[in-house]
Amino acid sequence: MDITQFVEQSFGRWRSQRSAHHLAFAHFEAVESTIDIVALAANDPKVIELCKSYDVDPQTATSPFQMSWQGHSDWDDDQVMSGSCILVPIPDRDRPNHGKLLRDQGYAETVPAAGNYHLTDDGTFVLKTAYDRAAAEEKIWFVNPNLRCRVSLIKTSNGTGVVTASFSSEIRSLSNSSGN
Amino acid sequence: MDITQFVEQSFGRWRSQRSAHHLAFAHFEAVESTIDIVALAANDPKVIELCKSYDVDPQTATSPFQMSWQGHSDWDDDQVMSGSCILVPIPDRDRPNHGKLLRDQGYAETVPAAGNYHLTDDGTFVLKTAYDRAAAEEKIWFVNPNLRCRVSLIKTSNGTGVVTASFSSEIRSLSNSSGN
Repeated sequence: MDITQFVEQSFGRWRSQRSAHHLAFAHFEAVESTIDIVALAANDPKVIELCKSYDVDPQTATSPFQMSWQGHSDWDDDQVMSGSCILVPIPDRDRPNHGKLLRDQGYAETVPAAGNYHLTDDGTFVLKTAYDRAAAEEKIWFVNPNLRCRVSLIKTSNGTGVVTASFSSEIRSLSNSSGN
Repeated sequence: MDITQFVEQSFGRWRSQRSAHHLAFAHFEAVESTIDIVALAANDPKVIELCKSYDVDPQTATSPFQMSWQGHSDWDDDQVMSGSCILVPIPDRDRPNHGKLLRDQGYAETVPAAGNYHLTDDGTFVLKTAYDRAAAEEKIWFVNPNLRCRVSLIKTSNGTGVVTASFSSEIRSLSNSSGN
């Protein structure tokens, strides 16, 4: 599995169940959401702008995509969480299945972020992102073409303490996989 | 990381938060438990008996251990879930980091089970177990010496449908790591 295949497998609409474990106080949070992942054109102005903001040649981008989500948490039933971000993989020239992932917003902090990804031998996508005050480590893998698992760890910025461990099971929404 | 190191890293008392996602009806279950993992002697009669029940030479066993748990689920606050099982890794003679894991009880069904394990290049322990009416696939990895993550998938026996996806974050209980 290379990054292009991984991204292509991700296209569509997903119904996500996410559990966040806030480790310090052993709290469980449950989030249900709908996630849409759609391809972007390599020459999409938003892709080119994001590349330029990182001084990256847009020609080196592979399989850029947009991810949107809408959901709600049991922490606050009234509030709808929604958002969208653009993600642009930049494969390493020398190391197969390694690269950078640019995005115009992060999960842990809503600022642009560039993470380092690699794909393991067994097809797990691993992404490590350093933020100003936190670090995130994420693993995503396909159990089958219609089920993705995602484990995200949010750490303190020095990487020692894990603050939140969360797990998403994402089922492809077969009734409408076009992302509309 | 080999199986001996993996098992040794697991010894101690762990405080576990587990979230189960029952996928068909998008239900969340939260379980809190204490898990104790302790070494067993290679010549422990229970280890020898388990090996014999699988026609396995007890001499080929490596790092047998016992796992006990006690916890409660938000599905039924009144009921304490507790149990204990013996686990015996039997490394393959020919394939490094592959082998069988015998246990005297399974998770999905409370009957003896022999699963196939392997350790990936990045130190993830992967276990696949076939039961009569279900199949389980489990991944366990250490984020650091004091935090383990565990993802378990329970599938229908033909392996096509995933019924439950669950995630545990397990924090070492430093105040009492002797397992008592």
